Amino acid sequence: MTSAAAPVTTLPFKVADLTLAEAGRHQIRLAENEMPGLMSLREEFAASQPLAGARIMGSLHMTVQTAVLIETLTALGARVRWVSCNIFSTQDEAAAAIVVGATGTPDAPAGVPVFAWKGETLEEYWWCTEQAFDWSAEAAAEGADFTGPNMILDDGGDATMLVHKGRQFELDGAVPATQPSDSEEYGVVLDLLRRSLASSTDRWTRIAADIRGVSEETTTGVHRLYELAAAGELLFPAINVNDSVTKSKFDNKYGIRHSLPDGLNRATDVLIGGKVVFVVGYGDVGKGAAEAMRGQGARVIVSEVDPICALQAAMDGYQVARLESVIGDVDIIVTGTGNENVVTVEHIMGLKHLAIIANVGHFDNEIDMAGLEKLEGAVKVEIKPQVHEWRLPTGRSVLVLSEGRLMNLGNATGHPSFVMSNSFTNQVLAQIELYAFTERYPIGVYVLPKYLDEKVARLHLDALGVELTELTPRQAAYIGVPVEGPYKVAHYRY
Amino acid sequence: MTSAAAPVTTLPFKVADLTLAEAGRHQIRLAENEMPGLMSLREEFAASQPLAGARIMGSLHMTVQTAVLIETLTALGARVRWVSCNIFSTQDEAAAAIVVGATGTPDAPAGVPVFAWKGETLEEYWWCTEQAFDWSAEAAAEGADFTGPNMILDDGGDATMLVHKGRQFELDGAVPATQPSDSEEYGVVLDLLRRSLASSTDRWTRIAADIRGVSEETTTGVHRLYELAAAGELLFPAINVNDSVTKSKFDNKYGIRHSLPDGLNRATDVLIGGKVVFVVGYGDVGKGAAEAMRGQGARVIVSEVDPICALQAAMDGYQVARLESVIGDVDIIVTGTGNENVVTVEHIMGLKHLAIIANVGHFDNEIDMAGLEKLEGAVKVEIKPQVHEWRLPTGRSVLVLSEGRLMNLGNATGHPSFVMSNSFTNQVLAQIELYAFTERYPIGVYVLPKYLDEKVARLHLDALGVELTELTPRQAAYIGVPVEGPYKVAHYRY
Amino acid sequence: MTSAAAPVTTLPFKVADLTLAEAGRHQIRLAENEMPGLMSLREEFAASQPLAGARIMGSLHMTVQTAVLIETLTALGARVRWVSCNIFSTQDEAAAAIVVGATGTPDAPAGVPVFAWKGETLEEYWWCTEQAFDWSAEAAAEGADFTGPNMILDDGGDATMLVHKGRQFELDGAVPATQPSDSEEYGVVLDLLRRSLASSTDRWTRIAADIRGVSEETTTGVHRLYELAAAGELLFPAINVNDSVTKSKFDNKYGIRHSLPDGLNRATDVLIGGKVVFVVGYGDVGKGAAEAMRGQGARVIVSEVDPICALQAAMDGYQVARLESVIGDVDIIVTGTGNENVVTVEHIMGLKHLAIIANVGHFDNEIDMAGLEKLEGAVKVEIKPQVHEWRLPTGRSVLVLSEGRLMNLGNATGHPSFVMSNSFTNQVLAQIELYAFTERYPIGVYVLPKYLDEKVARLHLDALGVELTELTPRQAAYIGVPVEGPYKVAHYRY
Amino acid sequence: MTSAAAPVTTLPFKVADLTLAEAGRHQIRLAENEMPGLMSLREEFAASQPLAGARIMGSLHMTVQTAVLIETLTALGARVRWVSCNIFSTQDEAAAAIVVGATGTPDAPAGVPVFAWKGETLEEYWWCTEQAFDWSAEAAAEGADFTGPNMILDDGGDATMLVHKGRQFELDGAVPATQPSDSEEYGVVLDLLRRSLASSTDRWTRIAADIRGVSEETTTGVHRLYELAAAGELLFPAINVNDSVTKSKFDNKYGIRHSLPDGLNRATDVLIGGKVVFVVGYGDVGKGAAEAMRGQGARVIVSEVDPICALQAAMDGYQVARLESVIGDVDIIVTGTGNENVVTVEHIMGLKHLAIIANVGHFDNEIDMAGLEKLEGAVKVEIKPQVHEWRLPTGRSVLVLSEGRLMNLGNATGHPSFVMSNSFTNQVLAQIELYAFTERYPIGVYVLPKYLDEKVARLHLDALGVELTELTPRQAAYIGVPVEGPYKVAHYRY
Repeated sequence: MTSAAAPVTTLPFKVADLTLAEAGRHQIRLAENEMPGLMSLREEFAASQPLAGARIMGSLHMTVQTAVLIETLTALGARVRWVSCNIFSTQDEAAAAIVVGATGTPDAPAGVPVFAWKGETLEEYWWCTEQAFDWSAEAAAEGADFTGPNMILDDGGDATMLVHKGRQFELDGAVPATQPSDSEEYGVVLDLLRRSLASSTDRWTRIAADIRGVSEETTTGVHRLYELAAAGELLFPAINVNDSVTKSKFDNKYGIRHSLPDGLNRATDVLIGGKVVFVVGYGDVGKGAAEAMRGQGARVIVSEVDPICALQAAMDGYQVARLESVIGDVDIIVTGTGNENVVTVEHIMGLKHLAIIANVGHFDNEIDMAGLEKLEGAVKVEIKPQVHEWRLPTGRSVLVLSEGRLMNLGNATGHPSFVMSNSFTNQVLAQIELYAFTERYPIGVYVLPKYLDEKVARLHLDALGVELTELTPRQAAYIGVPVEGPYKVAHYRY
Repeated sequence: MTSAAAPVTTLPFKVADLTLAEAGRHQIRLAENEMPGLMSLREEFAASQPLAGARIMGSLHMTVQTAVLIETLTALGARVRWVSCNIFSTQDEAAAAIVVGATGTPDAPAGVPVFAWKGETLEEYWWCTEQAFDWSAEAAAEGADFTGPNMILDDGGDATMLVHKGRQFELDGAVPATQPSDSEEYGVVLDLLRRSLASSTDRWTRIAADIRGVSEETTTGVHRLYELAAAGELLFPAINVNDSVTKSKFDNKYGIRHSLPDGLNRATDVLIGGKVVFVVGYGDVGKGAAEAMRGQGARVIVSEVDPICALQAAMDGYQVARLESVIGDVDIIVTGTGNENVVTVEHIMGLKHLAIIANVGHFDNEIDMAGLEKLEGAVKVEIKPQVHEWRLPTGRSVLVLSEGRLMNLGNATGHPSFVMSNSFTNQVLAQIELYAFTERYPIGVYVLPKYLDEKVARLHLDALGVELTELTPRQAAYIGVPVEGPYKVAHYRY
Repeated sequence: MTSAAAPVTTLPFKVADLTLAEAGRHQIRLAENEMPGLMSLREEFAASQPLAGARIMGSLHMTVQTAVLIETLTALGARVRWVSCNIFSTQDEAAAAIVVGATGTPDAPAGVPVFAWKGETLEEYWWCTEQAFDWSAEAAAEGADFTGPNMILDDGGDATMLVHKGRQFELDGAVPATQPSDSEEYGVVLDLLRRSLASSTDRWTRIAADIRGVSEETTTGVHRLYELAAAGELLFPAINVNDSVTKSKFDNKYGIRHSLPDGLNRATDVLIGGKVVFVVGYGDVGKGAAEAMRGQGARVIVSEVDPICALQAAMDGYQVARLESVIGDVDIIVTGTGNENVVTVEHIMGLKHLAIIANVGHFDNEIDMAGLEKLEGAVKVEIKPQVHEWRLPTGRSVLVLSEGRLMNLGNATGHPSFVMSNSFTNQVLAQIELYAFTERYPIGVYVLPKYLDEKVARLHLDALGVELTELTPRQAAYIGVPVEGPYKVAHYRY
Repeated sequence: MTSAAAPVTTLPFKVADLTLAEAGRHQIRLAENEMPGLMSLREEFAASQPLAGARIMGSLHMTVQTAVLIETLTALGARVRWVSCNIFSTQDEAAAAIVVGATGTPDAPAGVPVFAWKGETLEEYWWCTEQAFDWSAEAAAEGADFTGPNMILDDGGDATMLVHKGRQFELDGAVPATQPSDSEEYGVVLDLLRRSLASSTDRWTRIAADIRGVSEETTTGVHRLYELAAAGELLFPAINVNDSVTKSKFDNKYGIRHSLPDGLNRATDVLIGGKVVFVVGYGDVGKGAAEAMRGQGARVIVSEVDPICALQAAMDGYQVARLESVIGDVDIIVTGTGNENVVTVEHIMGLKHLAIIANVGHFDNEIDMAGLEKLEGAVKVEIKPQVHEWRLPTGRSVLVLSEGRLMNLGNATGHPSFVMSNSFTNQVLAQIELYAFTERYPIGVYVLPKYLDEKVARLHLDALGVELTELTPRQAAYIGVPVEGPYKVAHYRY
């Protein structure tokens, strides 16, 4: 772990000079203009400081947008330690800017400890995560007794998982041996916890006890939380930020609509107009993808397993077909299912020469990359980073973007700031709820109350010049809602 | 009530000759081709006859599409008596065709008793409803002891309300006196029940006891059901068909998308392209309306009170403004809110000369028609039926369609058959659930289980040439759903 | 010719009472609001009366929009006699309103002589045309020497053709015998001219000499004019109004976009969303048709013979295929080619049950109706006027709209007023050019100068709230155009 | 001219090693797949070699797409020397690949002499151009007497201008003195010609005499040609490739539709959805821009000076306004007019904070960059190359892309290969026409005959899976066109 060894003693990030930090500061300033939700919260809560006393451990892609989130949390009174939740997703200039802080220097940083850089190893990744849990310096500085955070802001659930596992093994008195069937990454986690247990028998137990709650961003992370809750093993309350309307219906649909064509263009420069684009899955991701491709003049064909979504696709004017039925006509495949092997090697072998394969769904296993790598006679040629030509035994080639991983991240820059502002405003509101209104949330998994979901939307209207209409008291009474909302029943589908 | 007096003794409908019935038969045949969900159910349940023994009292617009619904219910074994749920909505040729039946004649009808014609008075309307509850002839024919139906298929809740009120007053031993504050219609209902109580003290009590359940179609009717249930007064289980995805997300959005331009064209022949169309409300109705108008080349401006829906409208590319901010630019106003007075007299006075006002939301009070009628100096000129020019004191005029009532019904022909096939397939499945699986449904209000919602969609795919993709067992396991569905969590928003 | 015999002596139209005229007057008033181009011309030329002295013989569908055109011509000083150019296209209430005039009564008409009613025979049609050429009453009234008009406003070229044939036969001294190969209609024309020649040997020669010019509206009529000019046989200058940008690019594209879904809805009420619509031809008509169908959520497939238009269709996101390749998937066929037999009997036999066939192109021979009528075993069932089910030997049926003729006219109401305002403003400007600036136009065929084409557009902007930007003199100089236009080179494609 | 000094003696391009060339070769191979028109011509003319003997001097952006063009020209028999027509537009890897050739090495290049690199000075640019006119080495190698090319393939007209000026000054016997009012660039040209005249008195006269023709790509270049022809000064025939339908209607509309959002994304990563985008000009460029922005969920407002285009914009559903009327609502300005100062400093001062200004029209003077640079108190901050924040005296900032120059080139990669394939196929066909069918083209400016324009389209259909329909002979006769085309009259607008 040499790469991080040196800076650790002095600084949580490898800040060589101020240039990187300054570049990051520029971008943060531009991003602030596109994140009106967060900026509004800074204004609203400048005086009341609802997060005063909060010690937030954040585990979420360390990007420019996250920088605006972090500075919002601190503006509301919180102290923060941060890691990225993905080994590739850190934007180093954003990390540098946050570490240095607006007025700091490398020698006298005024910012937030961030443990993240682009291209970590798995060992580094989990080492970083452990650092973000280590608040002993802060405790020492104020002569307090804590060892870790009292809040988690999570994306994917790694931080939450570590606390749960750590406490479990402390209860058990032992960390189980790594099994051959364990993933490489789980082995790293077990090593970490083995070392931890060797040095302290109650570290994670104490942390777990201190934590007032976690807010979680992703489908995957939320799924784990519901499982823990169902098993009676959840240790602190959780807010499922993912299922806020202003999160799931916005970043999936509108984020992908933006970043899919962006990724295709940066990766390939291929004209989208006139092409046949096959969108696998017509959930929110697929809906955004299909709209974007049609908006560029492509002919879109959709596949679905859910008959309701399939019918929606048809009613929206798309052809709905199985991929194998039209494979020979397809120029671009876009996957957005959250499922595995929706594009098989057989599909790939049937594609046109130089057809493009782009995943905007979930993991790289949406496409059978493992199968492709094992395919006899296939040759992989790097055209440029994140763009590979696979020469197939058929004599044809295909272009695979971002090695089958999320190409809107790998070939473009992910969701734009405005979309993230919606998601992150939900995060901040969830942190306030859990920290400042702890009594409202016995251990369990919650979604944000609808009035807060509506508030998130409300904070993004002015920036778009949207004039909201107000109900008269009589109208509100007529439909049986408060004038100020919430306006819809819980199951309303938007 | 002379108009209906004569036929009652012999026939439930005023069948003068077979011409009307034959015209209706033609239209039913064409509609069947557009209602694949219902036709599939006929096939699927031809042998098992799950509704054998069911005596269904239906209260739902007696249109050509409803005719296909009725014949589907009977094909599944049910006996049926029918009324319209609106005094204007009956298509007489459809009613005639159903009464006469496919092989019958006026003298020897082979069809279903229908008590409905276009343009009933309130007295006639409730008289019809009462007839549909009177199954004494059927009981006599089979020497059975019942007096009424054992199932209700409802639209708006009038039939359900009548049973509840009737039984209540029988329990009370008296029908309350009509109050000055009672609506005219409620007075008619009280009269009816007063007469009923005079002739039988347990008619509605017995009917209520026999009824296994009701399936309800509308937001309004469902709202009443939840209120009854909350008050502990619901007498039998109810299925809320309205909140099936294949109902609410389909007829509101895709139905309005179709019927709004249709109604505008039939009413006014005004070019929609290039016009400024203001859509009040961006729920499912507003979403469909806005899409249709944009699809015709109009410039669409939207208003909303709910910040989430407002943000959706902005993200979909529409200007979002308060009506009063842009009133002078508007050529066509479309209301779809379910609220009252969203277009005020003041708005109307600010419109351009011959601007068009069209309601596709709910009641005629979305527009302040009452205020307009009281407006000093305003003159109403009939251009043609359902199209009125209101000459305003400003010297300008506006065109009001369908007197402020639903113009997609009044100026066009309502939702097309394919859309209704979705809604009605839900109705039939709900009837089967309640009748054949009574034990599953203790008294309460239910939505259809998601697998049936998905089934409704599934039955409409072939007609549109949709190929559904099938999950492999491994894929199904990966995302934790059965191969055959249901595929989504309950709160999934589509 | 009994139907017209009586009124002829007193009145040019069968005006039974004032009710029809009043209904027409209402509609004319509403249409005026949608025809800002014509209304602007009335204002602009109220004082100068550029058509004073003009005697215009108009031959153009006698609709409400044409009524506004006629009253514009008279407002500019012209006298007018009018016929429809199609036996079915007259709207009787419009004709009545024009004949009676705004202040007239049937006994004392104050309007314009119109010879047209819905549903003429061919004999009646040509008798009407002849009446519109007979200005002897007007000549008598003012003691003048003319016998006919001095201007023609033509749609399809029938009026122009009659003058040319009439003069030719007068020159020849004989009308040729009708040949077996002549069409029925041409036989009627020869009969008419035979009678004419019998009563006057120089009637058409004198008329031709008096005529200063003709403005022609249609592709067909324009084609005839260019042929006459090429053959050196054109007798007076002609302005090709059809090729004004504000005519051909507007009524074809935006008119069809409006009236195609309108016609489908009125004819069939079939949901367009989700259906497969096949558009034959991707010229301006096809472009408008495809846009309208996509705007309703249909999946559109296009066919083309011209590779440039085919490539445009692909770049606009449509599948481009031959009809026979996808015939089994098609729900609705729309033809817009101007060619013959683009839908063959073989195609029709391959369609899905109850597929719809709709022509918005040109003549009824776009679809092989003649072949269908001869098809062994085919049965034609009238569902309602202009909607026929053809039961095919295959056991399937198709729905043919308007018997294969233009369904946007037969099943809907044709182009809306706003679109016609563009076309008719071109007509009026062409009439002014030819009549008031005769010296500019030696015998030949002309298009309107581009500055007038731009003027037509300019007169329609205010009604749509369009703000036009003005060039600064420096900007105008930079791109080398006058500040006030014209702005584009002649071959600019828009 | 140090940067180019060394390579001149040995090689026309600074090839340091083969890495650059290999990267270029990869990209060329991918581009070939997107340029079916050019690849088809290679096949069609492989045997006949219609350009055998042609010596083509090409002056056109030295990009990957141009590399495919160059290799197509050589595949048809031509010899080629090439320069870029813009100091910034060269893609060095493409240039390297072409210079080295598919089988060459830096020591033994097998490719085409290219004189172009990214970031030339003006002196270097014109030195390069002169080199491409110097065919003395080729002449020497074959013992022939020529000194220059016999064909020009031009983009912007610089090459053509140089020949005309050079010959004129040779005729005059002197190069005029550079005037203070001359542009810097024209001074460089005069210097070059002064040196030329000093070393040869008939160099350009001989070249002009040898040249059989020029094909020209751009509006600007074509404009110059028409001026030369009108003045009787054109020295050889020219084909105006710009006005082929498959050029102007394709690269302007579909190219911009693709590259505008691409440039915005790469430059700013700002979410386009929900934003107000103001498109200045609704010609083909504006039409493509507006469609792209709407396709991303933006609200588009358009301005126009031409009432016809303004009316088109309104009919397409866009608000049409003057920029100053809505300036405070605008998030992104896109200019596409070809005119100057359509965005003024006053406009810029009225924009929202961090609004974006993007030019996709023509020169950087569409935006008043000169005025902005002179604005008291304005500060320019580089965010990253080609993205500048201008801090205004108002306290607000704007983001200017590519310094006001074409941002689809500066911030993205220009038109995609498929679009360029259309343009370049026109170029190749024009070269064949002028070189192989010289007798058809007396001195003058021509557009390609329509059948060749249609051919260009035809060659791009297969790649998109387009099935073209074929006319039957009877249908062709019915509409009076050959079965194989051309299908439209010259003035058809598409």
